[in-house]
Amino acid sequence: MNGTAIARAHPNIAFIKYWGNADERLRIPSNGSLSMNLDGLYTETRVTWFNDADRDRLILNGQPTTGPALDRVVRHVDQLRERLGLTGKVEVESRNNFPMGAGIASSASSFAALTVAAVSAAGLELPEHELSALARLGSGSASRSVPGGYVEWAAGGTHQSSFAFSIAGPDHWDIVDVVAVVSEVHKDVGSREGHAVASTSEFQRERVATATSRIDICRAALLDRDFSRLARVVEHDSDMMHAVMMTSTPPLFYWLPGSLELMSAVRRWRAEGLNVCYTLDAGPNVHCITTSEDADEVESRVRSLGCVHTTLRAGAGGPALVVG
Amino acid sequence: MNGTAIARAHPNIAFIKYWGNADERLRIPSNGSLSMNLDGLYTETRVTWFNDADRDRLILNGQPTTGPALDRVVRHVDQLRERLGLTGKVEVESRNNFPMGAGIASSASSFAALTVAAVSAAGLELPEHELSALARLGSGSASRSVPGGYVEWAAGGTHQSSFAFSIAGPDHWDIVDVVAVVSEVHKDVGSREGHAVASTSEFQRERVATATSRIDICRAALLDRDFSRLARVVEHDSDMMHAVMMTSTPPLFYWLPGSLELMSAVRRWRAEGLNVCYTLDAGPNVHCITTSEDADEVESRVRSLGCVHTTLRAGAGGPALVVG
Repeated sequence: MNGTAIARAHPNIAFIKYWGNADERLRIPSNGSLSMNLDGLYTETRVTWFNDADRDRLILNGQPTTGPALDRVVRHVDQLRERLGLTGKVEVESRNNFPMGAGIASSASSFAALTVAAVSAAGLELPEHELSALARLGSGSASRSVPGGYVEWAAGGTHQSSFAFSIAGPDHWDIVDVVAVVSEVHKDVGSREGHAVASTSEFQRERVATATSRIDICRAALLDRDFSRLARVVEHDSDMMHAVMMTSTPPLFYWLPGSLELMSAVRRWRAEGLNVCYTLDAGPNVHCITTSEDADEVESRVRSLGCVHTTLRAGAGGPALVVG
Repeated sequence: MNGTAIARAHPNIAFIKYWGNADERLRIPSNGSLSMNLDGLYTETRVTWFNDADRDRLILNGQPTTGPALDRVVRHVDQLRERLGLTGKVEVESRNNFPMGAGIASSASSFAALTVAAVSAAGLELPEHELSALARLGSGSASRSVPGGYVEWAAGGTHQSSFAFSIAGPDHWDIVDVVAVVSEVHKDVGSREGHAVASTSEFQRERVATATSRIDICRAALLDRDFSRLARVVEHDSDMMHAVMMTSTPPLFYWLPGSLELMSAVRRWRAEGLNVCYTLDAGPNVHCITTSEDADEVESRVRSLGCVHTTLRAGAGGPALVVG
């Protein structure tokens, strides 16, 4: 078998967070989550299958790469080989058009693009929900970077039932994510290790038990384009996840002083009438969620704060696609 | 009835926090708590009973005072009149020897001193646990400023059973509280209003349910003089309370950027070998709990941080006492 394909996938920002797995190996999450793909930012990945190669290879942002990054790619491709009955080795050439350490996790877009490219290069056509479930095996949130626009990942309980689907296309609403980068230092504890300790927090069980109701509120707010309802549930869910993180063993503090300054400013700006709310992933950078109408004002206010190094801006993005 | 008495009481810092009431009116807490009185800092209160006066009066730090401060004193003295069968009006002259806004709540020492002085001025002698329960009616944490040293407040379920008692005298262990003042601005939401919304957090129930086990660990660590065990449970309990605060409706964020900077520094210093941990009440100032051996080093490191305005320092203090 020989074949090649190029796929592009966007990173995504979760409005209702994924934190903790019911099944660590299969990355079946403890709770469902809800996100928006980030337009303009993408990982582009070319996968080529070789029958005659003796090992998988990875070229990351132009550099032949071994070590943990290659290991993770090999483990994911092993899953694809096993589940899809594929043989042969791959060469994976991947690059992001957004900088590392800019507050955007690249694992979601990377494993979504890798999965879609590898399947296409193998000459297979799979329905979106199967691609999403397969991408999930590489990185949980990658399942959400397969469908387009506003995306829900139902927790499911098995490999087949744990996939993401679009609840509204990117054109449904002009939500904008203004990312305030307060630190470009790589985080001490990555989200993979973090997921594994989520259950040590006394609060994780209640966070999980109540996630469905927050998803319902968030989905309805998105479908109704009701920003103030969206804002409350998005901030609350982010605060709940960080509360779990900070009370786990070991405690995980992703917030920096600048994160707290931003969060407080965002709440104040919203009280003053701007459509803006915050959400933070497993890192210190603050995603300021706003609408295209208020995005300039939000970005200018964000940049005026001394703790902000730089900003990045993205609207709602489309699905992962084969582009070559 | 005429009579006068002066009492002094120390503020206290909670190692296991009080947050939320099972009975708002009687201030019967949702969970037990554990604290240390703060030596050197005190409220001194003179109470004089007058048979012929037509109203209660309050002189606070030398100033005749009306409004909410007087109202709260009158409500507390009403409770004492009713429960102890007292008649007459009081003149209350109270002053703190520590500044407002220095990270030390004055309501605990104020209501402990007021209660002890008022009872003594009325010519009554009551056992410590009754004084503690009566002080609780004015401010929950005032119950813990009545006994001396290291103090536990058992939640109880009735007025009579909800009081604090000493688990070790001030000389048992030379714990020192180095208070890092990062803001002298008065907090937006006081702890009284905060207690009332504690139950709106999804996490409060679990915090309350697990408090007894944290009290057991904290009590044992104190009695064994085991600093590292103490440090872990004190920080965890503080983080849990703030997690509840930040996830309540409305969300209560007491941490400032400087608080987070201090918390992170304290964890780092402990990893480097210093005996130090942090705890924060319903405010941004960081109580750095240490031992007398490490207190100079901790205070000097704390003062070197740009976010710290000033520091205050206190060892374990004695009980509330009639001093005149």
